[in-house]
Amino acid sequence: MLAEFDLIRRFFMSPQEAQATNGVALGCGDDATLLMPQAGQELAVSVDTSVVNVHFPHDAPAQAVGHRALAVALSDLAAMGAVSRWCLMALTLDQRAFEDDAHAEQWLSRYARGFHALCQQHATVLAGGDVTSGELSIGVTVMGEVPAGSAMTRSGARPGDVVAVTGALGGGAGGLALWQRGERDLAHPLLQRYLMPQPRLDAGIALRGVATAAMDISDGLLADLTHLREASHVGVDLAPESLPLAEGLVECLGHEQALTAALSGGDDYELLVTLPPDQVTKAVAKLAESGLSLRVIGRCTETLGVTGVPDGRATGWQHFRGGAS
Amino acid sequence: MLAEFDLIRRFFMSPQEAQATNGVALGCGDDATLLMPQAGQELAVSVDTSVVNVHFPHDAPAQAVGHRALAVALSDLAAMGAVSRWCLMALTLDQRAFEDDAHAEQWLSRYARGFHALCQQHATVLAGGDVTSGELSIGVTVMGEVPAGSAMTRSGARPGDVVAVTGALGGGAGGLALWQRGERDLAHPLLQRYLMPQPRLDAGIALRGVATAAMDISDGLLADLTHLREASHVGVDLAPESLPLAEGLVECLGHEQALTAALSGGDDYELLVTLPPDQVTKAVAKLAESGLSLRVIGRCTETLGVTGVPDGRATGWQHFRGGAS
Repeated sequence: MLAEFDLIRRFFMSPQEAQATNGVALGCGDDATLLMPQAGQELAVSVDTSVVNVHFPHDAPAQAVGHRALAVALSDLAAMGAVSRWCLMALTLDQRAFEDDAHAEQWLSRYARGFHALCQQHATVLAGGDVTSGELSIGVTVMGEVPAGSAMTRSGARPGDVVAVTGALGGGAGGLALWQRGERDLAHPLLQRYLMPQPRLDAGIALRGVATAAMDISDGLLADLTHLREASHVGVDLAPESLPLAEGLVECLGHEQALTAALSGGDDYELLVTLPPDQVTKAVAKLAESGLSLRVIGRCTETLGVTGVPDGRATGWQHFRGGAS
Repeated sequence: MLAEFDLIRRFFMSPQEAQATNGVALGCGDDATLLMPQAGQELAVSVDTSVVNVHFPHDAPAQAVGHRALAVALSDLAAMGAVSRWCLMALTLDQRAFEDDAHAEQWLSRYARGFHALCQQHATVLAGGDVTSGELSIGVTVMGEVPAGSAMTRSGARPGDVVAVTGALGGGAGGLALWQRGERDLAHPLLQRYLMPQPRLDAGIALRGVATAAMDISDGLLADLTHLREASHVGVDLAPESLPLAEGLVECLGHEQALTAALSGGDDYELLVTLPPDQVTKAVAKLAESGLSLRVIGRCTETLGVTGVPDGRATGWQHFRGGAS
């Protein structure tokens, strides 16, 4: 196995020029990285760990593992309306999973490609890392900036606001089901949704100042809606027939299960937002600029709780294996 | 097992008042935390992962596991001369390691006590976290601040500078040896050094503007000295007889092995610094204010490489199990 420093240098360091133009005063290779936050901005930070066989299958393509570990962390910045700037990656590698050094290097090279491509897509510099030995898992810390006082939170929803979601739901659960059935064509739209989710950073920035509350959907719509409802002290009247279903979901799961996936499946990484009814047209137009849809799926009420949901729907989602997440 | 949010709220959230006075605009519980960096400061960031049976024994006291995971990360901020401000903790828990929920809660409570006590000691706010299921490991991201342009790095050593270390060396390796022999009295100074290392944050701040280069000693003096030499393009003439040996080390390992532990053992988390000879008295006095010694152990030379070291000494350290770290 390569030494840690070599690993980081070979596979994970961002190009010098990217660092210089992205507020990195001192890059990887010292005890800590030195970053230059911008005046007038708040720093939005979050950490997410992806564990093999909990958050992704052990035989997931390495490129998807790298992409996905970063994507789920960036999704939290999207929910705040922050601009992503830097990330740190703590990679724990199981050496026994590799036949030899060449195999390890091949896996790492593909993993790094997935990670870096998403970094570049969102102008995010990998500003530090750590490589350790153990069960495969990836902890990603993301750091973004948002003008002071303007971040979206979960607690701003008011009775009368509409509830809306970006993109489409159920794709995470549908993709997992497909993967478990043996489908391995990554071009399948549901596998794309499950293994290569796209953090909605542009949408988050566009909705800042328009949405009254926001969060990302990682545990499933109903579970996450509970968090938002509780933080905002509102109820929600949901219109499940309005849910935007992921492409290919009904064909894969049938109507009934597709709706369950959209309500309770996890790993969708869309944004769940509330906004005043008179802002919907503006919000839809803003998101259309980046090619993303926004669908109204309910409205906030004064009566706490959630109405409109068919009985007997599961309300949670336990990722791949069913562990705590 | 408790749900993630409950876990974080019960065991890991910093008190509201601590958050308010420490630059936290929005604390745990939303998608991301919002921090307020200070103008004129650079943000020093680092991440360190501690894995069971690699970085600490599986039967280490929970309090020590929590303390140690944070301490090794804070040590990187100390090396930069940064003031620690915030941290994020990604905890991966192996549910199978607990007999029942009560056992899990007891372990978590002690773990959190160790983590929080060190947070308080260094005015560091736990500003976010993630709890997942898998092999026990803790990823800690630390964030500190240092006046722009004044951080210490590994690359500033010049020929003629002296090489010095804070505190004492070999305690990490000595403590590990004791633990493996079955010693379980945590009051033993070597077990304290191994399981409850103290990050040298005050020393780092005191040495800013005095030291020409600095780093922390985590992989062992010789290995880390190599990093510093290479970054600074200097050689080092070492005086092994000057090495400050940890209390109880010679009694535990004998003279020969004690010296090896000080040269090549890891997990000491002292600072390794270089400074102009005429600054030594001042530096010693500054560190004495916080009760810490500084010992000159060699000097920087123009001839690359290291001299003065007895032949046949190991130059690396592979923590507990021997994996990549």
